[in-house]
Order: sequence, then C-alpha cells, then structure tokens
Amino acid sequence: MKVIRSVELMQAEMMKVRQKEVGFVPTMGFFHNGHTSLMDEAKKENDIVVTSIFVNPLQFGPNEDFDEYPRDEEHDIKKAEEHGVDILFVPDVKSMYPQKMSVIMKSESRVNILCGRSRPGHFDGVITVLTKLFNIIQPTKVYFGMKDAQQLAVVDVLVKDYNFPIQVIGLPTVREDDKLAKSSRNVYLSPAEKEKSVWLYNALMIGQQLVVDGEKNPVTIIDEVRTVLSEKTGAMIDYVELLNYPNLQPVTEIKEQIILAVAVQFNQARLIDNFILDHEGNIVTRL
Amino acid sequence: MKVIRSVELMQAEMMKVRQKEVGFVPTMGFFHNGHTSLMDEAKKENDIVVTSIFVNPLQFGPNEDFDEYPRDEEHDIKKAEEHGVDILFVPDVKSMYPQKMSVIMKSESRVNILCGRSRPGHFDGVITVLTKLFNIIQPTKVYFGMKDAQQLAVVDVLVKDYNFPIQVIGLPTVREDDKLAKSSRNVYLSPAEKEKSVWLYNALMIGQQLVVDGEKNPVTIIDEVRTVLSEKTGAMIDYVELLNYPNLQPVTEIKEQIILAVAVQFNQARLIDNFILDHEGNIVTRL
Repeated sequence: MKVIRSVELMQAEMMKVRQKEVGFVPTMGFFHNGHTSLMDEAKKENDIVVTSIFVNPLQFGPNEDFDEYPRDEEHDIKKAEEHGVDILFVPDVKSMYPQKMSVIMKSESRVNILCGRSRPGHFDGVITVLTKLFNIIQPTKVYFGMKDAQQLAVVDVLVKDYNFPIQVIGLPTVREDDKLAKSSRNVYLSPAEKEKSVWLYNALMIGQQLVVDGEKNPVTIIDEVRTVLSEKTGAMIDYVELLNYPNLQPVTEIKEQIILAVAVQFNQARLIDNFILDHEGNIVTRL
Repeated sequence: MKVIRSVELMQAEMMKVRQKEVGFVPTMGFFHNGHTSLMDEAKKENDIVVTSIFVNPLQFGPNEDFDEYPRDEEHDIKKAEEHGVDILFVPDVKSMYPQKMSVIMKSESRVNILCGRSRPGHFDGVITVLTKLFNIIQPTKVYFGMKDAQQLAVVDVLVKDYNFPIQVIGLPTVREDDKLAKSSRNVYLSPAEKEKSVWLYNALMIGQQLVVDGEKNPVTIIDEVRTVLSEKTGAMIDYVELLNYPNLQPVTEIKEQIILAVAVQFNQARLIDNFILDHEGNIVTRL
C-alpha cells in the first residue's frame, strides 16, 4: 500500500490510473468496522481502492470537537493494509488548505434539518472537502456509511448538481454486538451511557415496527420513538425526525422511501442513528 | 468531429479518453478569431481538443443580454471543424441545469472590482458552469482569452482552491485590424461607435507607454487613460483600473505584474479591454 501525503503527488498518482475503476472511501480515521466494511465493498467493486484520512477543520463548528476528535494513525494504517486498501491518502491541514478558500460552496437544500440544524456550516465544510478530494482522487465510485445518512443525501446533490463523474454508494451502518451504531465518538461514552445508548437502536426498531404494522402517520411514530428515547436514555434529545429520503422533506403520510433518524446528546458524546426504510418498513441496504 | 449534446453522453465519451491530454476551450459561441486562436493553440498542445458552446444563463444579470446574446450555431460548427476541434459540446440549458442548483458556489476574492462591480453574481455563474464543465469534460488544460482577464484570475483561484487537475492557460487578446478587441458583442456597435471604440486600445497603449517610460504611480496612469478615453469615445466610462495581476489588488507603486483595464458603455454594447504588463511595461503573452 502506498501512503501519500502530498496533494500534488496524490493527483499525479491518480492521473496514472485514470482508466481504472477507483473506489474511494473518504474518512476522518480512527477506523472501526464501519469504515472497513466500506473498504471491503470498495475492494470487491473496483480495480483500486483509495482511502483518505483527514479530520477536516471546515466541518467542525467553533464549539465542536475538532481538537479532541480521536486519532490513531498507526492503527489506521494497519487496518487499511489488512482490508486491501491500495492507496491511503493522509494529507495535513496545511496541504489541503494552503490558503484561505476564496471560492466557497454552500448547500441550500437538505441541510436545515436533522444534524444541519444544530451544526450550522457543517455540511458546507463536508462538500468543500469532498469536492477537493474528488478532484484529487478522481474516483469512479465513492462509499459512505448510511449512519451519516444526511451527509449521503447532501453528497448526492453535490454530485448531481456539479456532474461529478462519480457514483455515490451508501452502505449499511455497522453496529456493535449490542447494536449501538459504530462511531469514532463512542469512545467518549461513560460505561453507564454506553449501556443506555443501545436505546437509540431499540427506539428506531420500535418505530420501524409501527411502519411494518401499517402506521402511516409520521407524527404517531415520531412521538413513540421520542417517548422511548427520553425514558430509556435520560439524555437530551436533539431530534427525532421522519422525512422522505434522500430529499429530507417532511411527509404527512408514509408512502415513499423514508428516514427515521435520532440524535441524542450524552455528556461528552452526541450520538446519531437512523433507519432508512421503504414505505412498507423494510430496511434499505444499499443507496 | 463529434457533436454531443447530452451531459451523460459527453461524460461517457470523456471517460474513454481519460488517459489522453485533453485541451478544453469553453465558449459562449458566435466564434471569432479570439475563439479560434484558443482552439489552434489547444490543438498544438493536446491529443484531443474539446470546445463547448453554452450561453450560460447563470452568469447574466436580470438586466443583461442573455436573450439577445448573439448566436450562430451553424457558423460555429463550421469554424470549429476548420480549426481541428475533435469534440464540440453544445448542451441546452435544461440539460446543464435540470433542477435548481442546491449547492451554490461563490467567489469571495478577485470579484468586487473591475467587471464584478457592475455585474454582481456574474463570476459566481462563471465558476458554477465551469465546475460543471470541468467535471463533464475532465480536461488536462483549459484555455481562455486574456480579454476576459478577470475571469481568468477567478478561474485560477477556483482551480487552486478545489484542486482541479487542470492547467489554466491565458492567451493574448485577438484584435480587429483597427485593434479593437474581438468580441461577440461588437456586433451591437453602431458604425460611429465602432470608429470611436478603437480608443480603448489607444488609451491602453498610452498607459503602457507611461509604464515603459518609468512612471511608477498608478494614479498618474489611470488619470491619463481616463482622460483620453473620455475625450475620444464620448461614452460612459465604467472603469479604468490598474491592479496587480492575478490578485487584482490595488497597488501604490508599479513593481510587479499588473493589469491596466478599461470598460466603456456604448449605446447597446459594453466593451472591455486590458493590457497585462510586467513591471517594465512589457506585454505578457501567456498566463
């Protein structure tokens, strides 16, 4: 595996393989099975797998955890190697942002709901860094976990709006044995919080069951999920939302692909989770 | 020569030739020697030359001449063929903008001066359509005329900020026999205006001569150029500016590469012209 740290070298490297199928897994590192499942799938579907590790300052708000975001490069390099990554791109902040950006990108749809509401500017930072990474790597396919479903929806618009020659693929959220969604931020949880955090998944399951049972009214489902979450976690609920997907518009009746999504603030960790469901309540396994 | 009108087909076509050197000449059509000189140079320096014709509504203000902008596709196809263009991309507005753009791009530097001042949003439209075209065509080199020097400066930032794997090349303004800069908008000039319009070039020449003679004070040069323009054209002067280039910042002393630029409003045509000079007053012939 090659590890490349320079934007210029990375771009030059990718020019050599332009004719091939390149699967790209952009990450912020601190790899868990969620990341490696994306690498595995990319490996199956492409000639070359490229993974990037870059904790992107632009997508962190001033009071967020950019400095504290967990990092373990040595572990990540080992993991990437094990999962067949061909090229690992690990630029530093200065090489990605050598000067203040003069041309800014802003997403005006799919962002003023869910995580976008409590993280203003977050998705603008995401699309900015992804546009840069797409131009540097020039992948044919890019892989995201469905846990970051809103990110996936925003990237979907970015790629369509600007004609990136890239297929955007969403793969299922990978979970711990107790069903807590894998997240680099799970290390922030206290043991007691960790135990309660399983209720994000359980609450979503209860919501899903209502859809399966034929409940068409989103309000009923949202109320039920919120009640369960609140009683079982005792944590501050950031949101419980049911929207169509990927447009992320509120619906009055469940009759298309939807996302049921929750975000909960524990002491040091803000956790998110979601199910993407068809109108009958079946879990969608690839986007 | 292939003529392709669909974004999807164009992108598929370009995927086939990703390994080659692709020179791209983006235009709004109505070809004159300014355009064909770019095609000729692209032909010399690349395996494949792609030209696009797209009158981009996003870069026209509400009171500007989008509807009246001169078009002659038959003539353009003939010209492109004559000048060795391999692929001519002629999308319609609906295929370039199938839905309202959700992700918007804004340039925050190099735009609030020169033409940007009287054409708010113009350069945002330019970088938006160019980002789309770059992703569709995936060129290795892109060619612009120096007449649109501010556009060239803005594109230079766009490409650097977002790591497009593209070399941006600026080539000299092509002129009529009487030295009026070639422009599709010259057709709007009355015969009397056409005669006076030569004074854009003459005034720039006078400014250049001052630099050659050792004048270091931009104000002296600007005043002289403005006086000549005003007396000889009788038209409304939009601006006379002397800035460093490509940063487009005002300078207090001429000691680096500069642009001396003018814009004049005739009855139906707004004309622009400029010289890009080194600090000794020599004309720069390639950017």
